[in-house]
Amino acid sequence: MRGFNFILFNMDIRICQYRPTLGDIEGNLNQVLAQIENQSHDIICFSELFLVGYPSTDAWYGNNAKERIQDAIDAILVKSQSASGLIIFGTPLFDGQYWRNAAVAIANGKIIHQHYKCCLPTYDVFNDMRYFSPGSTVQTFKWKQQTIAMLICEDIWANRISYTYDPVLELKNQGVDIVIHLTASPFEVGKLNQRILQLQRTVKETGASIVSINQVGGYGELIFDGQSMAMTKKGFLIYQGPAFKTCEHDLSQKDTSVVSNACPCEWGERFSAITYGIKEYMAVSGFSKALIGVSGGIDSGVVAALAVAALGPENVMLVTMPTQYNTTDTKSDAIELASRMETKLIHHSIDDLRVCIETDLSNSIGQLSGLTKQNIQARCRGMLLMAISNQTGALLLTTGNKSELAMGYATLYGDMCGGLNPIGDVFKSDVIELAKYINSHYDWIPSSMISRAPSAELTFNQRDDDTLPPYDRLDQILDQTMIKSYTSKRLYELNDKQDVILVLNRLKINEFKRAQSPPILKLSSKSFGQGWQYPVVT
Amino acid sequence: MRGFNFILFNMDIRICQYRPTLGDIEGNLNQVLAQIENQSHDIICFSELFLVGYPSTDAWYGNNAKERIQDAIDAILVKSQSASGLIIFGTPLFDGQYWRNAAVAIANGKIIHQHYKCCLPTYDVFNDMRYFSPGSTVQTFKWKQQTIAMLICEDIWANRISYTYDPVLELKNQGVDIVIHLTASPFEVGKLNQRILQLQRTVKETGASIVSINQVGGYGELIFDGQSMAMTKKGFLIYQGPAFKTCEHDLSQKDTSVVSNACPCEWGERFSAITYGIKEYMAVSGFSKALIGVSGGIDSGVVAALAVAALGPENVMLVTMPTQYNTTDTKSDAIELASRMETKLIHHSIDDLRVCIETDLSNSIGQLSGLTKQNIQARCRGMLLMAISNQTGALLLTTGNKSELAMGYATLYGDMCGGLNPIGDVFKSDVIELAKYINSHYDWIPSSMISRAPSAELTFNQRDDDTLPPYDRLDQILDQTMIKSYTSKRLYELNDKQDVILVLNRLKINEFKRAQSPPILKLSSKSFGQGWQYPVVT
Repeated sequence: MRGFNFILFNMDIRICQYRPTLGDIEGNLNQVLAQIENQSHDIICFSELFLVGYPSTDAWYGNNAKERIQDAIDAILVKSQSASGLIIFGTPLFDGQYWRNAAVAIANGKIIHQHYKCCLPTYDVFNDMRYFSPGSTVQTFKWKQQTIAMLICEDIWANRISYTYDPVLELKNQGVDIVIHLTASPFEVGKLNQRILQLQRTVKETGASIVSINQVGGYGELIFDGQSMAMTKKGFLIYQGPAFKTCEHDLSQKDTSVVSNACPCEWGERFSAITYGIKEYMAVSGFSKALIGVSGGIDSGVVAALAVAALGPENVMLVTMPTQYNTTDTKSDAIELASRMETKLIHHSIDDLRVCIETDLSNSIGQLSGLTKQNIQARCRGMLLMAISNQTGALLLTTGNKSELAMGYATLYGDMCGGLNPIGDVFKSDVIELAKYINSHYDWIPSSMISRAPSAELTFNQRDDDTLPPYDRLDQILDQTMIKSYTSKRLYELNDKQDVILVLNRLKINEFKRAQSPPILKLSSKSFGQGWQYPVVT
Repeated sequence: MRGFNFILFNMDIRICQYRPTLGDIEGNLNQVLAQIENQSHDIICFSELFLVGYPSTDAWYGNNAKERIQDAIDAILVKSQSASGLIIFGTPLFDGQYWRNAAVAIANGKIIHQHYKCCLPTYDVFNDMRYFSPGSTVQTFKWKQQTIAMLICEDIWANRISYTYDPVLELKNQGVDIVIHLTASPFEVGKLNQRILQLQRTVKETGASIVSINQVGGYGELIFDGQSMAMTKKGFLIYQGPAFKTCEHDLSQKDTSVVSNACPCEWGERFSAITYGIKEYMAVSGFSKALIGVSGGIDSGVVAALAVAALGPENVMLVTMPTQYNTTDTKSDAIELASRMETKLIHHSIDDLRVCIETDLSNSIGQLSGLTKQNIQARCRGMLLMAISNQTGALLLTTGNKSELAMGYATLYGDMCGGLNPIGDVFKSDVIELAKYINSHYDWIPSSMISRAPSAELTFNQRDDDTLPPYDRLDQILDQTMIKSYTSKRLYELNDKQDVILVLNRLKINEFKRAQSPPILKLSSKSFGQGWQYPVVT
């Protein structure tokens, strides 16, 4: 008996769940060539647009792209002569008139098949139509007695979004044995299940088994989680690759099924994605140490914990910069946090600096308003943190959550200073849940930080809900408008109308702040960033 | 004799060169309704997507757009019963399956014709495919014995860019009398001539006369200049509307030709566009006064002059914040500039503040590096300017030119603080030319500002060309790579290779700074902003 899996694929297939570098055609090519060297698999496959990385950007599009991509394909053609198997990879391909998002299958020095992505997502963070023209058909081809089809990412999602054409349905009744699905599907909490459902739809409609190779990597706001998959004709998931890790995996004829499930709950998913996003951002931009200003509030506490989880306590530096407006409790919580995580804590009062600026300024422009003074405090902290960042080479992380960013409850050039915002796509209510999740594993965050009423502490006895609805009500409205896209009418039905008016208005008038925000790790189906395209000025 | 123009149009046509508000369907509708009221023209026309404004953003796309747009169209249908003419306007239209960028022609309570934009630009700042599906044909219709066709913006540019289909050629030999061209064409220096050429191509191919209604308005980075046009069948321009102004114009049967030419030279074009962009940004976001930190250098001098030209000296406040590193000359130039323009000048030393921070910080983290100290200076200035902005309600304008932004020669949260960057799409060499242009009209900028070697003056005897190639060489490389899209190979042939390597590398590694830049007024075919889509992290 040849075993269960033999029936499933009839092939040795190597999945290369890799991290391409955006725009670096030559570097990505080298990853392909290194894998082809002396390989003996029947098929070896890479993810969507692997030669340039996903998402597409202007970084590959200009600068002699046609020649550079042709050279890369030529190099693979040459190298393929020393390999016995079929090499499948994604690349932009110029067909003489248009650029295509293509999957190319190469064997023995020849392109034996190619497929052009038919469904080009151009919504939210996706921008495929900026670079490509859609294909209009999907064809099968034979390889080692098997009938193979290649599909690319959104090609299997056509039933979910309004496309003119569904490539999956075209493969119905064509006797396809194996679908090779090249994808680069940005991470979102809960998306894994949707990916599985779409694969199940594909095997059900086509009668084929499917191998789905997903990109892995963090690219500023976008994170790709990998978790490549293989599914039998019956919709049985026999392989799920690791999350947030590069890997090669051989779907051999002898293996039993390997299904990892790295993120069992939504908080675990957020935790893993954020820590990975931090690590990736820093590694790629050349930082090894991170810096966080901790106020004693929950947001900076969670960001500090995430950074420590990502980088280790020795690579995280916390800075506490209290004023007279901070309570004794918040000050001691910052110290307690650092002590529990065993990170370095720099204590730096901003009172002298603040007084120096306020005195200086009021001499020249008169009595300062409350808002001016509050912003000065936040900006003193921003300046100190950036000076420490410049001096130590540590990357400053910002700590604004999604609810605050939505409401503009943040100071430009103050607490918004930094290279990356790890929790800008986490609502305030969810930051608290995330803190509890972290504590269930590490017990780093003082419980008083979690339970304290949110306050910016920029003046005495200030509370966020002095000027905003309480976060449970606020977050519900934000979720309903940003994620669920409810109409204002529906929002009025489900919430206090005055709350809704205040929230929608503040959401709108604060685009100018978000326009200058550092990249925010995307964790949901609608994050502030590339996928949120609202005008600063209307 | 009925006059020359009678032969040209056989119609009274009213051009409404208006400013729609992005996403404000109800407000824009009211502009349409006000014009229809008791009008007696044969045709009255508005620009592309007038009901939602251009560019499309997510601001109209969500929140019950189908119903709101249908309501607006219904209101126009009702109102049209009281008018004798045809009403032509642009709007998103849902055809039951897809959203279309549509031109709608309404008369006597009925939609008598509609056209779907066929060529949907999705490059540079354009994003039409995010919101719309392309039309596949253009049809004519009869109105008052004339054969009319409607085309939208890019529909007449299909010969310039790779589209599957050219709507202008479809109209060949169809006996069209008049083409109504609805457009929203973002301003670029020198683009007017291209627009005229495309209209000439259209009349040549179709044999029709053409009326082109362009949007006007400033929307942060994008500026629309209006300059709507009418051209005879012979390609003779008989009307060109004002630049950077809303207007109604009646192309009557009796008029002689009216061709304004507001911007006779490229410097005049830049000057007009920037001053308009400043005015618009401020008006829409509710500011009446502007604030600029003037260093004595040419960039801040030019921005100050542009702001005074836009807003009047009484609405501009200059702040000079010298340190020991500033030469006596730059200090006196700042004073001279303010005096010539009759603007308020606040003098505010940052030396106390700088020393206070440096002492404080070196006590806690040790001896500060040169870079840290330079950034502290820039950030002290940023903080003071923002405090003055908060206190006075004046909008802070930033003064970084395109060459500096390209090279990352700017301090985040320092000189990059502000709500709008008026000269971020002007190379350093062009800033100097712009200064000369301004002086040819106003004589505001001290000549020593124009002739002095560029320096950030963040330390003694610093010059920009200590670390960058001289600006003439730098700007040539930037122009060749950003605007002309030359390959690196070609750049090496035309420039010093070491310069090219340095420039391309600095251009690439400074995306993180530009990602946090305020909006930059777009003046060229490639500006940092929405049209420049390079990754922060690769």
